[in-house]
Amino acid sequence: MSPTELVAALRARGETVATAESLTAGLVCVALTDVPGSSAVVRGGLIVYATELKATLAGVDAALLAEHGAVHPEVAAQLAVGARDRCGATWGLGLTGVAGPDPQDGVAPGTVHIAIAGPGREPRVLTLRCEGDRHAVRAASRDAALAMLASELVT
Amino acid sequence: MSPTELVAALRARGETVATAESLTAGLVCVALTDVPGSSAVVRGGLIVYATELKATLAGVDAALLAEHGAVHPEVAAQLAVGARDRCGATWGLGLTGVAGPDPQDGVAPGTVHIAIAGPGREPRVLTLRCEGDRHAVRAASRDAALAMLASELVT
Repeated sequence: MSPTELVAALRARGETVATAESLTAGLVCVALTDVPGSSAVVRGGLIVYATELKATLAGVDAALLAEHGAVHPEVAAQLAVGARDRCGATWGLGLTGVAGPDPQDGVAPGTVHIAIAGPGREPRVLTLRCEGDRHAVRAASRDAALAMLASELVT
Repeated sequence: MSPTELVAALRARGETVATAESLTAGLVCVALTDVPGSSAVVRGGLIVYATELKATLAGVDAALLAEHGAVHPEVAAQLAVGARDRCGATWGLGLTGVAGPDPQDGVAPGTVHIAIAGPGREPRVLTLRCEGDRHAVRAASRDAALAMLASELVT
């Protein structure tokens, strides 16, 4: 599903989306808002590039961040919930990972966790091992997040 | 100044930046974080696409939004201050405007207000009348915001 199709599907369902993005720093929201009329379904998002902002802006458990670092599946899950709840959306997407070129918190570049939180159930988390440079890792992460949202909207 | 040069200049000054973006929905933060090593100077941001989030996430005065709508110079100024303060950055950039194709709150497409808030003085606001389609308006807004930041860093 293209961003245009995603916006149309959300609109048909009367639903909205928000993001909490670390390594992509807004790329997912940019892709969705490239579509004319997206303001009917895109609420907004949180760009939580600094680790501390994952807690203060998105409500990720600070103890989890201290113990496991910022690149962890449960951090992605909590980002998705934070995006959904703090932006008042039906769906929340959370992305955290290492774009590179350097490792972060001992995690290799290309490691990315993406989560989606919807109405009334636990978030679903996907882990990617992306190849390529910083640009490729971020683009692959964006595309995977949009695909996760699409998979929820066809059911 | 390119994003790479902006990141280097901030790094040399020991300063950081954050954004609160409406029509660009993350484009400014995406441009800065394309640069390897940007995590030393980019804190994050607030994507306040829905009008209500300008108040709840960035602290823009709800009465101002109710009276003047979301596309107003003072809204940009308050977004810049909100980005700076809520993300704990030295510099905050705030962007609000109409990407089009339709007018918003009675304001024509291509009208964009961009503000920068720095340490210890009033925000500076720039108003653009952009030509072109949605994509062109958003790209011009991103470039103008980065140029405003650059102008502060050379002084």
